[in-house]
This record gives sequence, structure tokens and C-alpha cells, in this order.
Amino acid sequence: MFSSSRHAPGTAPATLVARAGAEPPVVTLIEYDAEGIEERQVGSIEEVFVCRDNGKVSWINIDGLGDVELLRKLGAHFRLHPLALEDVLNTSHRPKMEEHADHCFLITRMASVSDEGEVTFEQVSMFLGHTFLITIQHLPGDVFEQVRQRLRAGRGFARTRGHDYLAYALLDALVDHFFPVLEKIGEDVEELEDLLLESPSPECVARLHEIKRSLLQLRRAAWPEREVIAALNRDESGLIAAETKVFLRDCYDHTVSIMDVIESYRDVTAGMMDLYLSSVSNRTNEVMRVLTVIASIFIPLTFMAGVYGMNFDPDASPWSMPELRARYGYPITLAAMLLVGLGMLFLFRKKRWI
Amino acid sequence: MFSSSRHAPGTAPATLVARAGAEPPVVTLIEYDAEGIEERQVGSIEEVFVCRDNGKVSWINIDGLGDVELLRKLGAHFRLHPLALEDVLNTSHRPKMEEHADHCFLITRMASVSDEGEVTFEQVSMFLGHTFLITIQHLPGDVFEQVRQRLRAGRGFARTRGHDYLAYALLDALVDHFFPVLEKIGEDVEELEDLLLESPSPECVARLHEIKRSLLQLRRAAWPEREVIAALNRDESGLIAAETKVFLRDCYDHTVSIMDVIESYRDVTAGMMDLYLSSVSNRTNEVMRVLTVIASIFIPLTFMAGVYGMNFDPDASPWSMPELRARYGYPITLAAMLLVGLGMLFLFRKKRWI
Amino acid sequence: MFSSSRHAPGTAPATLVARAGAEPPVVTLIEYDAEGIEERQVGSIEEVFVCRDNGKVSWINIDGLGDVELLRKLGAHFRLHPLALEDVLNTSHRPKMEEHADHCFLITRMASVSDEGEVTFEQVSMFLGHTFLITIQHLPGDVFEQVRQRLRAGRGFARTRGHDYLAYALLDALVDHFFPVLEKIGEDVEELEDLLLESPSPECVARLHEIKRSLLQLRRAAWPEREVIAALNRDESGLIAAETKVFLRDCYDHTVSIMDVIESYRDVTAGMMDLYLSSVSNRTNEVMRVLTVIASIFIPLTFMAGVYGMNFDPDASPWSMPELRARYGYPITLAAMLLVGLGMLFLFRKKRWI
Amino acid sequence: MFSSSRHAPGTAPATLVARAGAEPPVVTLIEYDAEGIEERQVGSIEEVFVCRDNGKVSWINIDGLGDVELLRKLGAHFRLHPLALEDVLNTSHRPKMEEHADHCFLITRMASVSDEGEVTFEQVSMFLGHTFLITIQHLPGDVFEQVRQRLRAGRGFARTRGHDYLAYALLDALVDHFFPVLEKIGEDVEELEDLLLESPSPECVARLHEIKRSLLQLRRAAWPEREVIAALNRDESGLIAAETKVFLRDCYDHTVSIMDVIESYRDVTAGMMDLYLSSVSNRTNEVMRVLTVIASIFIPLTFMAGVYGMNFDPDASPWSMPELRARYGYPITLAAMLLVGLGMLFLFRKKRWI
Amino acid sequence: MFSSSRHAPGTAPATLVARAGAEPPVVTLIEYDAEGIEERQVGSIEEVFVCRDNGKVSWINIDGLGDVELLRKLGAHFRLHPLALEDVLNTSHRPKMEEHADHCFLITRMASVSDEGEVTFEQVSMFLGHTFLITIQHLPGDVFEQVRQRLRAGRGFARTRGHDYLAYALLDALVDHFFPVLEKIGEDVEELEDLLLESPSPECVARLHEIKRSLLQLRRAAWPEREVIAALNRDESGLIAAETKVFLRDCYDHTVSIMDVIESYRDVTAGMMDLYLSSVSNRTNEVMRVLTVIASIFIPLTFMAGVYGMNFDPDASPWSMPELRARYGYPITLAAMLLVGLGMLFLFRKKRWI
Repeated sequence: MFSSSRHAPGTAPATLVARAGAEPPVVTLIEYDAEGIEERQVGSIEEVFVCRDNGKVSWINIDGLGDVELLRKLGAHFRLHPLALEDVLNTSHRPKMEEHADHCFLITRMASVSDEGEVTFEQVSMFLGHTFLITIQHLPGDVFEQVRQRLRAGRGFARTRGHDYLAYALLDALVDHFFPVLEKIGEDVEELEDLLLESPSPECVARLHEIKRSLLQLRRAAWPEREVIAALNRDESGLIAAETKVFLRDCYDHTVSIMDVIESYRDVTAGMMDLYLSSVSNRTNEVMRVLTVIASIFIPLTFMAGVYGMNFDPDASPWSMPELRARYGYPITLAAMLLVGLGMLFLFRKKRWI
Repeated sequence: MFSSSRHAPGTAPATLVARAGAEPPVVTLIEYDAEGIEERQVGSIEEVFVCRDNGKVSWINIDGLGDVELLRKLGAHFRLHPLALEDVLNTSHRPKMEEHADHCFLITRMASVSDEGEVTFEQVSMFLGHTFLITIQHLPGDVFEQVRQRLRAGRGFARTRGHDYLAYALLDALVDHFFPVLEKIGEDVEELEDLLLESPSPECVARLHEIKRSLLQLRRAAWPEREVIAALNRDESGLIAAETKVFLRDCYDHTVSIMDVIESYRDVTAGMMDLYLSSVSNRTNEVMRVLTVIASIFIPLTFMAGVYGMNFDPDASPWSMPELRARYGYPITLAAMLLVGLGMLFLFRKKRWI
Repeated sequence: MFSSSRHAPGTAPATLVARAGAEPPVVTLIEYDAEGIEERQVGSIEEVFVCRDNGKVSWINIDGLGDVELLRKLGAHFRLHPLALEDVLNTSHRPKMEEHADHCFLITRMASVSDEGEVTFEQVSMFLGHTFLITIQHLPGDVFEQVRQRLRAGRGFARTRGHDYLAYALLDALVDHFFPVLEKIGEDVEELEDLLLESPSPECVARLHEIKRSLLQLRRAAWPEREVIAALNRDESGLIAAETKVFLRDCYDHTVSIMDVIESYRDVTAGMMDLYLSSVSNRTNEVMRVLTVIASIFIPLTFMAGVYGMNFDPDASPWSMPELRARYGYPITLAAMLLVGLGMLFLFRKKRWI
Repeated sequence: MFSSSRHAPGTAPATLVARAGAEPPVVTLIEYDAEGIEERQVGSIEEVFVCRDNGKVSWINIDGLGDVELLRKLGAHFRLHPLALEDVLNTSHRPKMEEHADHCFLITRMASVSDEGEVTFEQVSMFLGHTFLITIQHLPGDVFEQVRQRLRAGRGFARTRGHDYLAYALLDALVDHFFPVLEKIGEDVEELEDLLLESPSPECVARLHEIKRSLLQLRRAAWPEREVIAALNRDESGLIAAETKVFLRDCYDHTVSIMDVIESYRDVTAGMMDLYLSSVSNRTNEVMRVLTVIASIFIPLTFMAGVYGMNFDPDASPWSMPELRARYGYPITLAAMLLVGLGMLFLFRKKRWI
Repeated sequence: MFSSSRHAPGTAPATLVARAGAEPPVVTLIEYDAEGIEERQVGSIEEVFVCRDNGKVSWINIDGLGDVELLRKLGAHFRLHPLALEDVLNTSHRPKMEEHADHCFLITRMASVSDEGEVTFEQVSMFLGHTFLITIQHLPGDVFEQVRQRLRAGRGFARTRGHDYLAYALLDALVDHFFPVLEKIGEDVEELEDLLLESPSPECVARLHEIKRSLLQLRRAAWPEREVIAALNRDESGLIAAETKVFLRDCYDHTVSIMDVIESYRDVTAGMMDLYLSSVSNRTNEVMRVLTVIASIFIPLTFMAGVYGMNFDPDASPWSMPELRARYGYPITLAAMLLVGLGMLFLFRKKRWI
């Protein structure tokens, strides 16, 4: 549930081990400046090493963590810290930002939601240097496609700024993709609310439990994400230009909004169990009341019928049920029964039980 | 519910896109000094540009966000940051205060409540510069009418102070309008409390749930509003004069009171579910007790009647129910029944069940 | 409930408006030094203006807020800030302390409790200057009588110290009067606790709800009161002498104790709903168990009686209920019934249901 | 419950009044240095005044607060602040530490627990000066006996250090005596836990409520105790020697552990109400299920018997219950009843109700 | 439960007393440098004293606390503080880090989990000096075996770094072993969740209560562990080399993750009681509904049968039940019963009770 796929306890620190089932890496290199953009998939990791000094913005993206050797070469060339590389291989590390000598290392989380409302996360690691931006993802498919399209089209200031702005654009895309997830959860919450009031069932409670858990997971992802962006904003190493920081502040505002919405949903869902319980207890009460009324009315009547079903013989003794032979014994008895029944009905209606 | 009408994830930052259904803007310009006041609706946004250097207080109000081009021109003339303009178009941004080179940018929320107790919010954005105050609202109608009337009447120091005092007056009007909303909710809470004790129903719970949600929304709006005013108060750019800050502190006190009242209501409503549950369980118990008493009394009596309804034939054997022919068999049986019934009644009364 | 009687939203700031139903003011002036004390009720507010420079301690007390003009004159003479005067007219402002040029302004709350445990508050505003202390109350009657008597008697250092010590003495009286209120609530809590265990009823829950609300109100009053006294203690304007601060620290300790007791009661009352619910569910279970036992025992017996009440005719067929004519049919049947009944009783007792 | 025996509100500050029922004081003086120890009970308070300048460590212990005059003399001689003496007379003041000119004043609480698990506290006040340590207790009997024995035996560094170490030793004894109290409560919690699962009763809930309240009281005592020790540790007046501070840090660690254990118990007890409720609802369900099964089985059977108990006369009409005279009518009816009964049993067992 | 095996209250500070049942100590010495490694078990504690000045990394490990004299000798030789040694003997001290003149003292906790999900802890104390690392454990068996194997193999930088790196490696092993414990608890939580939905029973609640308690204990251990590592990281005494601090930061990240997971589980388990209660109330409702339907249908029918079982004699009066002799009296009665029964069934189905 919340378990992370970590290396076995006791493993030497900074040991790089591929996870079981990790996919073979696909390396893509995008290089651009205001003039133009070049985009290609490289066969061997050494091909990207040349990009360091050509004055262009170089974005190296790696999909899949199946090749530890590739990471080791990458780390050696770009002087990435071995512990950072170990964290890259960890599929569910807490988002964090670490400053190193000439680059900074970010771990972030990409949220997505299925149509059933299940929230999944993918870890995205970034190394932002003065002459490179490396992003490493576990699985193919990401939320960066629109950034790539903006780069290709060259709209806005997309291609006129440096690696820091590219990193911001990617972070912004990651953060923005929390909103559709929250919207889906918001819809689920509203739907569930109606369901709870109309036809409460234990399935609702299980669903509510799942939503709460999704919110927990989102909070667990969004909270440190916020810290990551705040840390980038405070960065004084010169990696982040002042004009990019204005944008990062905007991005930070979005993470604050995300936390805000998550907390609001948590508060709302906290109250929904009450809705359910009151809804259920109301239904039980309705059932109970009907039983009470029916039983309370007929039990005395059945007793009366039982009395006149006793076999005391009027012939044997003048005290033995002479009413059985009375001319109007039967109709009077029936009338008495009717009276008792109506009386109780009246009483119950007065007490508002029916 | 808490969802904000944001641009699609992945859109380039600082992209200005009109929301679907946004109304065409109506631009009003109010200019005044101690001598007089001029108020007019302008046809084209360029008309307001001349107001910058005439020594008067200029308040440009825009109702409706349907015309993105107008905003772009406004931004270009007054040098407003594109990210700020993007936030203006967002209909439910978190209240915030941002300092820019020669102006500051505020997002605030205007609360209103319907007669049914539904709380709605409208975002009001403000740009406060040395020579202008721009307010932008999404919908026609606002809470500033009384400020306008004070300006027209020229009462108090209304017209003798600068743009900062005007901004304060508008913020004060916004903050003050949280109070009638809270009063309406307070009335709803008291009404609901009586209802819960007298005739608890699941509708009460749904109503309680709605009130709790309204309080959540209010808190979500009021909390950052407080921060906005505190930030203005700390402002050191010279936009806010010292004598205006005394008034802002007063306004800040009001936001503290608002938070205080909201938290109190939240605490009170938290306890109301208990009221409901105990009220309901009490009703159920009353019903249950009646059933118990009636059933407990008549079940044994019915059994006795059942015994004497058995068809053992006294003729067939001297052991077969000779009491059926006993002289006082019937009256004794009835008396025994009465005795058992009264005994149980007495027992139940002693146990305080009836 | 928590609503404050505020001016209408949109009113110009610092507007002085008398509340509907405010009482006409009664102004009392007490002047004293170590030598003697003079105490008189003045007819017109101008009479108190002379007191400013005679070297005595001057305490001006105003009961009732019905005369706005009087306040305006007072403010003009003592140079009180119009916003402060507006706050004075607000009957339930949050306690606060404001430093002004040559005086400081305090809002505090006086708590009292009725015999029924209802807590009420009265706002007491104070202006503490170098040569005057002004206290303004909404209603006649206060908790300062013992301070006045100490002044008249001249006991202790009562008359040898300045305006700051007088202000402390009044604050101390205000704070000390929270204790009897808390004691009353403490008694109510203990009484209610016994009641909950012995004879739980929905009235108990309503009472618990009221106590919780009283505690909320007390907390809302005591918390900022503490801040007020802490702020006075930090005062560096020279209004508060160092030797008075020792006393204020003691007074601060008392407010800490008050908050402590309030929080403890809140914790205790939070657990009392559990007491109630378990008490009620226990009663319901007792009732249920009796019904179960009686019904479970007699239902099978009634069935047996029903069987032998069937009209199958032994004459018509040898298979038709020959036991009806058996010599010991009836006693055996009765014995079987007794056996079944006792067996079930035994079973239920073994299961500890009775 | 949480009420403190305070002086009447409005009393002049620093008024010394003996509590009703306060015991007459017993004054003990212990003087020692590395060479030897002298211990005696003094008749008049003046006897202890001589101890100030003989270079020995002087510990003046006073049991009982019945003699206000004695306190006043003590205060005059040792220059204790009147407000501090007033706090000494208060039997349940919040623990605190106050620095005065040449001594510091501590209020601490001594916890003890009865065999029934009732927690009681006694206030211990301390004045620590350069040449004296005064401890004042309300009641005879304390937790310092082992400290006295160590002093008498002269073991460890007991007699080689100054007043500050003695104060530490006493505080350590006070803090250490929270542990047996917590252990007793821990045992009660574990016992109650077993009871809740095995035989839940409303007495358990009342007991749980008491334990929670004891924990509240302990927290209320331990939390400020921790602050007192931390304040002593920060002391820079020179009263506390650096080598004693190492020990105070250890003592501080113990108060942290105490708070830790208290919080853990609070968390555990918070979950125990759930245990109780589920235990009770389980029992109710068991009872309900038996009633349901018995009633559900016999009600239809009784109806069948009732049908064949109807007095339609087969002689009067060929349609009137001809089965009464059928050869196998009775056995078939009995068999049908058996079948219906077994069928329902089977159904209920399949639904796992029995 | 949370009780610590502390010395008796009142014992002199820094008294070393062996716990009852403490095992006799086994002392192991591991000495290594980049060249080689020597590992041996020593018979007398004096044998390890020689290790201090040979330039190698010396790791002294002691298993078992049965020999107080040995600790005293160790302390005297390495100049360990007596209070630290006292803490070593305490089997459940709160994790902490203390800096002393030339070494630092750490208390940490080793977590392990049984197959039944029971979490146990063992205290591990460490003294880290410039020329030695002493670890002291209460019981044989630890989580350091993999560190020893790495040292023996000489892989990585295992043997090339100093005492500080060794201390880090041991801390890392301790922290990493929290993860399998959390994974086991995570599995238990998921298993319990399924169980709660499928077959809720009070055993589930007891199990939930145990899990919650385990989480409490883990939090109580992990929280201060985090502080210990943070304190080491801030160390400025020169004991920890800068390049080791990078690794400690990584270790610190792991403790943050642990707290994160613990808090998440606590949130999840908090919601599981709701799952249980709704699951149970659903089952009760199902049972209730069946009883209601059966009873509600048959009670009126039994009454009808009872009426025609009355012994009014049609011969005695024309008003006495003439329908008993009507030609179709019996079939009509049966049909009426069928109709009533079906009618109620239909009604109940319409109300969705069956």
C-alpha cells in the first residue's frame, strides 16, 4: 500500500541494483535554442555526452530503469552522486531536492487517476545542471508531451530560456496534473454523497475508505512536492535565474492550492461517515417501527382470540365462559378487538410512530 | 465543490484564455479628489489610460472577464505581470498578495449567502499602483456600492486620501460582508439545533453536512484573506501610507474575528451530530420499550390461553385437564392471567421501563 | 450565539453609532493618592477633564453606551483614536491591546455565570494614559467593587501606586472572576457525570452540549485575554512600571491556569458523550435481553399448546392425535413444556443473558 | 476536579491567608557538608535563620501551611517575594520557575497513586538560594526519604556538592515518582483491556473515563514540570553549577519519557472505547440472532397449528377442513411442520446466523 | 506495555545496577584498516583497552548487561560519563544523542517483528570516540551481520573509512530494519481490511487495536531516532567527517520515510473501525429485516386463525360465527390469509426490505 520497493535492509549504501521487472531504458535527447530544435532517440548513452558544451539547452530523458550500467556511466560522466543514483532506482522515494556541487537533484511524483478513481504515482527524478537537464522515469508515457509540443512550436518564451526554465516547465506540468486527479476525486465524493443519502450500503463505506486512502496518498505526494519547489525557489547556487523564480513562485502557489483542496476533501469525507450512519440507522428505525406497530397491535388481539379458544365447557359450570353462548358474544368480541386495534393505531399515530 | 476552473494542465504559463461563458467586460472609471468626483462607464479600454497623471485618485473597475484582448492591453499599459493576469482569469484562485516593481497585486474573495444558506464566492482581483487602483470582478454586482456612495457624498475622509485608502475601504467592505454570511449560518445552526432535539430526521444530518461544508469554504476563503491584509500591512514599498496602516490593522482584527467565529461554529457543529444520534437513539429506545412491554406481557398470557385451548378430552382420562370442568376453572384462569399481567406491569414500572 | 453586534457592513470606518437599547451613561470619577480618596458621580463629561494634571490617580468609569456625543467629547479631550472608540461601542469585540502615542487601549471581557450555569460576558474597554485610566462598560454592575473598597480602605499598597497598578488591579479582578465561573461549570460537569451514569436521558446530552458551548465561549474570551496581559507585560512605552510588571506576570500565570482548566474540562466533556452512549446502550440491551428471554421461552411453548389445540379428530383416524386420549397425555405434555422452559432458562443463564 | 483552592476573587494581591483545614507546620532543618550531617526539628522558625552563613548546605523543610505568620517571618528573613508566598499557600498552582534577585522559586507537584488507581497530587514549593534550600509541603509524608538516607549515609557525591545538587536530587525524586504512578495506570489499562474484551460492562466505561481523567491530570502536572526543569537548566544566574546541569539534563530526559508514556496511554485509551462498543454490539447481536432464529422458526409453525385449531366443521360442509379427518392428516401436518422448521434452520445456518 | 525497566525511584543518580535476568556479557573486538581485518571474542574486558592507539578502526561490541563491573571498568578506561552508563543499563530508554568531551553517546532502538505481527525492540547503545566505537546490546543477535560481512569482504569503501562511517553503517542497518517491520504491519493491515469487509468479528477489533498499538510503539521509537541522526548530522565536534554526513543525510531521509509510512498507516487504521462498525451494523440489519418480515407476515395470519379457533357456538346463537358452517367458509378464510400474506410481501418488496 504505502510500501516502497527498497533494496534489502543491510545492503551497502550507494549500491545500484535494478528492480525486478524494470524495463529496458529508452534514452531521448532534445537539444534546442531560439533558432531551432533537434529531437532524437539515442542508441548508446555515450551519444548524449557530447551535448555538454554546445550552448544549446539539452534535455536528456530516460524511460525505464532496467540498465544499471547505463546509469553508472551517466553518473560518472555528469559527476552525479552515487546515493542520488540509488534514490533514482527506488521507485517510490519521498520527493526531495538536494543541492550538489554543480547540479541539483530533484525527486518528484507524477500523479494519474484511472476511470475507477484509483490513483497511481510514478517517480520522476531530475538532475539540473548548468549545461544539462536529465529526467529519469520508471515507465513509458508521461505528462510532458505538451511541453515538448510547445518546444517544437517555439511558442511563447519556450525556446528562449535556459535549462532552469525547462525544469520549471516540467515541474509545472507535473503539478498541474494533480488537478485532474483531484477533480476526479471531487466527482467521486459528490457522487458518493448522493448515494449515501439515497441508498446507503456497506459498499459505500468501502468506497469512502478508498477515497480517503487516495487523499492520503495524494497528500503524502503533494506535501513534499511543495517543499521541493520552495527549496528550488530559495536556491542561491545560481542554477535558477531570477526571472525563472517568478514562475516557480506561481508553481508554488499551485501546490498550495492542491494541499488546500486535499485538506478540504479530507474534511468533507470525514463527515460523510456520519451521513452514512445516520442514513442506515434511519432505515433500521423505519423497519423497526413497522414491526413494533404490527406486533403491538396484533399481540393483544391474538391473546383475546386465544382466550375464547379455551376449552372451558359452559355445560360443566355456569362460570365457564357463559359469553360463548350469549346472543351477541361473537360480534361484541369482534367489536372489542376492532376497538383495541384502532385505539392502538390512534395512539401510535399520536406518538408519530407511523 | 472545491474545484477551481483552471486552464487545462500543460498549457504554457501566462497564457490568457477566456473561460467559457465569461461575460463581456463593463469598464467603469471613477476619478476624484477632495474637490469633486467624476464617474463614467468607458466604451474602450484606452480611455482609462489617460487617468494616470492627473493627480486624482483613479479607480478602474472591470466587471466580466469575457474579453482577453482588453486585459492584455490593460496589462501592457500598466505593466502588469502576465502571470498575474492569468490568475485574474482563474475564477477561484486562493487569496494572495504579490509585490511587483511599482504596484502590488491582490486576489480576494467576496462572500455572499442565499436565503437557503448557500454560500457563494466571487473572486475580486486588485492592482494597486501609485497612480491607479484596478479592480476586476467576474460577475456584475458587488459589495462596493456603499463605498461609492461615501465617495459621492464626500463624507468623512473618504475623498481626502489616496489610492491606498481606497484599497483599504474596498477590502474593509469585502471583509465586513463575511459577517452577514456568518450571521445567516449562525441562525441556521441555532434553528437546526432546535430541530435536532425536537424532531431529528436524516434531513437534519444532510443540512448539518451542508453547513459544515459552508464553514469549510468560508475558512478556506477567510484564512488567506487574513494573510493578504497582514502582508499589505507589512508592506514597505511605500504604496501604503502609515496612516492607512492603522485602518488596515483594524481590518485585520476583523478577519481575526471572522476566523474566530468560524472556528466556534465548527466546534459547535462538531458536537451536533452527537445531539442527533442521541436524539434518534432515544426515539428508537422508546419504540423498543413499548414493544418489549406489550410483547413481554401478552406472550405468557397467550401461552396460558393456548394451554387451555388444547383438546385433551377430560372424558378420556381423569388426568386430562379436569380443571376445564371445575366450577371456578374459568374465572380462576382469568384471574391468574390478570395477576401475571399486573405483576409484569409492576415489575416493568419498578425497573422504570414505562 | 457567537454573533457580535456590529455596525452594518459597508459603514464608513470609525463611525460612532449607538447600539439600539444602549443605556444612558453614568460617569463616575475616583481620584486618590496616598493621602486620601475622592469619589463622585459627575453630571457632565466636561467635569472629568480637569483631573488630568493634579498629580492624583484618576479613574474615570463609564457605565452605559447610550450617548455617542459624550464618547466623542471624551475622545477629543484625551486624544483617543476614533477606531478605538468605534471598538468600544462594539459590544463583543475580541480582547486586544493597542499601543497609541501616549496611551494604550485595552478590550477585555468580564465573565459571569447564572445559577443555571449560563455564562454571559460584558465587554470592558480601558484607556490607560500617564495621567488617567478610563474604563467603559456596557451595563451597570461590575466586578470592581472589591478594588474600590481596597482603595477606600487604603489597605496594602492600594493607594501608593500609579495608574498602571490600578489597571493591573482591575485586570486581576476581571481574570479572577473567571474562576468562580469555571468552578460552577466544574460542578455542573461532575453533576452531569453522575447523572449520565445513573439515569441517562437526552436532556443530559443537551446539557452537555450547552456546557461544551460555554467552555468554547470561555476559551474564546480567555485566550486573547492572555495575549492582552502578555502584551501589557512586554510594553516598553513606560506606561507600565517595572514593579507593576511583577504583578502582571502573576496575573498572566492566572490566565494560563484558566486556559489549563478550560482545556481539561474540554477533554473531560469530550469523553462524556461516550459515557452517555454506553449507558444508553446498556439500558437498551437490558430491555432487549428480557424480551429475548421471555419471547424465546414462550414462543416454543405456545407452539406446543397450539399443536394440541388442533382439531384433528381421534375418532376419524387412529393416526389423528391418539395422545389426546392417552391416560397421561396432558400431564406429560405439561411436563414437557416445563422441561423445555427450564432448559432454555438454564441455557440462557449459562450464556449469562440473565 | 481541576479546581484549585484559590483565594476569593478580588482579594488584594500578595495577601497571605491560611486555607481552611491547613495543618500546623513542622519545620525540619538538615545541615551537612562532606564531614558530617546534622538533622533536627526546630520549635520556632527563628532557629533556622542562623544557618545562612556557616558554609554548610542547609535544607529547611516545612510540612503544613497552617501558620501564615511563620511564612511571613521566613519571607522577611530570606527576602522572598510576597507573590511567591501567596503561590505557596495555593494548594494546586501550576508548576513554574521564577528567578528572583538572589534566589529562584519553584513550584512542583508530587504525584502518588492509591491501590484503586486514584491519582493525587501535592504541591511542593522550593526556594533555592546560594546559602539555603527551602522546601514547603502541604501535608506530612513525602518522596524525599531516600534522598535523606543517601545524605545520612554520605554515599556517592551526595554530601560533597552544594544546594543546587540537593535541589536536583529532590526534583529527581519527584520526577522519578511519576513512574510508579504510570506503571499502576499501565497495569489498570491492561487489566481493563482484557475486561473489555471478555465481559464488557458500563462499569468498564466509567473506569476508562477515570483512567483518562487521571492521565489528563498527570499530563497537566508533568508538562509544566518539564518546563520548570528546562528553565532551571537554562539558568544563568550562577545558582546552578555547570556540573549539576549534566544531572538536570538527565532529569529533563526523564520528564520527556514521562510525557511520552502519558501520550502513549492516552492514544491507547482513546482506542479502548471502540473495543468496548464493538464488544457490546457483538453481545447484543448474539442475543438478537438467537431471538430471530427461534422466533422465525416457531412463528410460521404456530400459524400452521393455529390453522388446524380453527373450528370449521367438516360436517357442515365438504369444503370445511376435510383434512382433519384424513387418515394421515395429523402425521402429515406434523411432518410438514418438521420440514418447515428444518428448512429454516438449514437456511439460517447457510447464512451463518447460527 | 510502555513501561520501562527503570531503577527504583529515589535511587542515587548514576548508580549502576544490573537488571534481574540480564545475560552475562560477550565482548567481541573487530579491528580493521584498508589492509586487513581481525575479529575475536575477548575473555576479559582489559584486552580491548590496548586497541586505542594502533591507527585501526576498533569496534567493541558487548552483548548482554549481566556484569556491571565490566561496564564500570570500560567507563573508567574510556572516560564514559556515569549517567550514560546508567542509561545503557536501562532497557528501554528513549533514543537520544549526547555530546561529551571526546566522544558522543547514542541510544537507538532495533525493531523486529514476529510472524504474528508482534513488534519488539532492543536498545542499542553506542559510544563513538575518535579511536573507538563501542556498541552495547541487551540480547544476543542483531541486525549488524551484513555490516560485518561487508567489512570482512572489504567491498566498497567499507574498510577505507573511519569510526564515523562505521557508526553510520550500523545506524543505517538499524534504520533499514524498520522497513521489513512496517511491511509486515502493512500486510497485516491489508489482510485485516479484507477480513473486516467479509466477516467482521470482535477478534478483528482486538487485532486492529494491537496493530494500532504496534504503530504507536514504532512511532515512539522512530521519532527520536530521527532526532538522533539529525543531531549527529549537526555535530561540529569533528567526530563526524564531512563526507560521512552525506551518508547520514541519506539515512535521515529514510527515517523521514519511516515516519511518513507510520503516519499513513495510522490514518488508514483510524478509518478501519468505521469499516467494521458499518459492516457489523449491516449484518444486524439483515437479520433484523428477516425477523421483521417473517413476524410481520405471520402475526396477522395467526390472529386470523386464532379468531376462527374461538369456541363461540353457532348453535347457541345465530350471531355466533355462522361462517364456520358456510359452504366455502374455510377456503375463503385460507384465501384471505394468502391474500394478506402476499399483500404484505408485495409491500415489503416495494419498500426494498427484502
